[in-house]
Order: sequence, then structure tokens, then C-alpha cells
Amino acid sequence: MMKIYDWHIAPNPRRLHIYLAEKELKIPLEEVGGEDLKLKPEFIAKYPHAMVPMLELDDGTCIGEAMAICRYLEGFHSDPPLFGVDAKDRAVVDMWEKRANEEGMLSASELFRNSSPEFADRGLPGSAEPIPQLSVLIDRAKARLTRFCHKFDEQLATNAFVAGRRYSVADITALCAVDFGKWCDFEIPEQCTNMHRWYEEVSSRPSAQA
Amino acid sequence: MMKIYDWHIAPNPRRLHIYLAEKELKIPLEEVGGEDLKLKPEFIAKYPHAMVPMLELDDGTCIGEAMAICRYLEGFHSDPPLFGVDAKDRAVVDMWEKRANEEGMLSASELFRNSSPEFADRGLPGSAEPIPQLSVLIDRAKARLTRFCHKFDEQLATNAFVAGRRYSVADITALCAVDFGKWCDFEIPEQCTNMHRWYEEVSSRPSAQA
Repeated sequence: MMKIYDWHIAPNPRRLHIYLAEKELKIPLEEVGGEDLKLKPEFIAKYPHAMVPMLELDDGTCIGEAMAICRYLEGFHSDPPLFGVDAKDRAVVDMWEKRANEEGMLSASELFRNSSPEFADRGLPGSAEPIPQLSVLIDRAKARLTRFCHKFDEQLATNAFVAGRRYSVADITALCAVDFGKWCDFEIPEQCTNMHRWYEEVSSRPSAQA
Repeated sequence: MMKIYDWHIAPNPRRLHIYLAEKELKIPLEEVGGEDLKLKPEFIAKYPHAMVPMLELDDGTCIGEAMAICRYLEGFHSDPPLFGVDAKDRAVVDMWEKRANEEGMLSASELFRNSSPEFADRGLPGSAEPIPQLSVLIDRAKARLTRFCHKFDEQLATNAFVAGRRYSVADITALCAVDFGKWCDFEIPEQCTNMHRWYEEVSSRPSAQA
């Protein structure tokens, strides 16, 4: 039986939760985040890569990385399509999802990990060794998030959703990035009116509460 | 006619060059890197995202992000398979390719961009505004690359290639990450003997010279 190792409050697992809700898919979840805001030692022992979410297949294969999991599930559950509908559309979705991740999620992660007292010595994810926080990264991460918003705002000026006419995984990652930024009081700049319009729309889908 | 906008010496375009060589595919290339080590202004005007490689389709659609381009091409040229051979294998390749990118390529990029005099004020890729270099990131980037090597060394202890028995895009990205690190004199740690064995093997494939 397939199973997801989850940390319900964390931003990367949220990408998968929203995906599952859009597909109306249910897969058993096991919570592996501890009350000390660290992954449970049993989980790290099982999966030394120490990142969530992780999908364990029937044969014990461990698939990590939220979007690798979503793409795997897409192969079995194509309706509604969330990775694009034809070759070109799939490429456009893929490109924008990668940008949402590298420019949005990773910037928000940089901001959070370098500014949150609870994450002292955890300046990077997935590490056993202490990684000191660097306060100089806080402003740079905010600048990266601002740039991310302006770029996506421009794309959303002529597109209903991030990768075109249809809601896709690119919207999921971008939404999770924006909401992750909010953890550290980062807000979409006021002048990014297209992004504000998009944010209200994708946030009002039931999947956003998953 | 499909066309690739290229900067031949750069690490992300190299991922695509190696992919094309493995497939024995030829697509017209246009060099858009200038002698001043900056992208040519005509290219940035055409493609404000300002990153290479970029694949322009017949209808003018611009596909960016090296792996989004490779995945698009895979749909038309499946032999030899470089994104996995079945659903599970594809997920494993996808996961390891993402890790090779986020833990390898992005760490090497962080090292290079924060230490190379030619990249003063270009501390992040794809930006029009100046982003100052942060010398404090140099050591952290080296630590990230070291961690990347240890993780991949462990995987390569029981796998011929990064994602299992077959050469895949995960090897391409990991190889480009290692060679990008070498630009700043980063070397695979001596004790990572599995990674050294792998590195010699993938480097000796003709595609590595592409």
C-alpha cells in the first residue's frame, strides 16, 4: 500500500496536498514532523535524505521531492491534467513550475531558514550537520521574492494562470511560495495587481485548504 | 525551424549539449553569450527572462530551463531513454535529477557567482538589477557541494549511475555540477571513491565533450 510521509504544516508537503485535493485522490499519510519542529528520528533513520514529502511505494521504493511525486501520480491519474495537455503545454508548465520553485520556493525558504529563531543552525534543509543562519541573506531573499513577484505578475498580465489558460502544478508551487513568504511577513508588492488577482483566485479554490 | 539560444561555455547549456549528444540529435544553435561574459542585449530584449539555454519552437514559443527543454525533446526522441523506462524508474530519475540540480548545480552556481571577480554585482542569475556578491556564501557553497558529493557517493555505492542501472539526465546534471564546481577549484572529496569511479566513467563518454 502506497504511503506518504508528511509534515502537514510544511510548504513542500503542501504542494502535494493541493495536488491530491485537485485530483480528489486520497493516499494514507503518516505525520513525521515532531513537536520540536524537527523531523522524527525514526523517519530520518528510515530515509536519511531527511526531506518531506516522501512517497513510499508498495515495493519499498522511496520517492522524494514533491513534484517528482506529483508527476509520478499524474501518470496514473491524468484527469484533470495538471502537468499540461500536449507536448508544448507540458514544456511550458514544466518551465514555469521550475521557476516558481527556484525563484519562489527557494527564496522563501532562504528567508525563513535564515530568520526564524527556531531554525538556528538549520540554515539549509535536509542536513544533519549544523548550518549557521546568515542574517545577510534575509534582505537578499526578500529581494529575490520581490523579483519573483514582478516576473510572475508580468506573466499573469496576459495569462489567467501561471502557465497559461489552465490551472497547473506551476500555480501550486507559486501559491505555496507566496504563502511560505507570508510566514516571514513577505507580501506580494501592491503594484503587482495581476498577481494579486491570481492569488485571490487560486487561494479560493478548495484545494488551497488541503 | 526549432532553434536553441546557447552560451556554449555555460553550465546549464552544457546539460542540454550532453543530452543532445547522447541522443545524436542536432538542433541549430545561436550563441548569445558575449565576449564581456554577459548575455547579448538583443537576446535579453527578445527573452527578458535572460537565462540560457532557451529553445524557440516553430510557432515562436520560448521554452527555458535546461531540463524542461530536454524533457520536451524526450517526448519526440525516446531512444535511448534518458528520463527512465517505466513509471517508477521515471520518478526515481526525476527525484535524483532534482537533487543534482538543487544540491549540486545551485551550490556550484552559488560558489561561482559569489567568488568570481567577473561576476561582481551578479550574485544571482537572470537579474537585471545588481545583486552584490556575498563572500560569506563562498564557504557555505563549498560545504553544500561537499554534502552533495557525500550523498551522491552513497547512492553510487550500490548503483552504477546516479538513478540506478542506466545513464540518465540525473547523471548529466550531476556531471555538470561537478565540473562547474571545478571552475572554482572544488574537487570531489578523495574519500568519495564511488563518485570518483562514476565521474571517470561519465566523463569518458563522448557526450561529455559536447
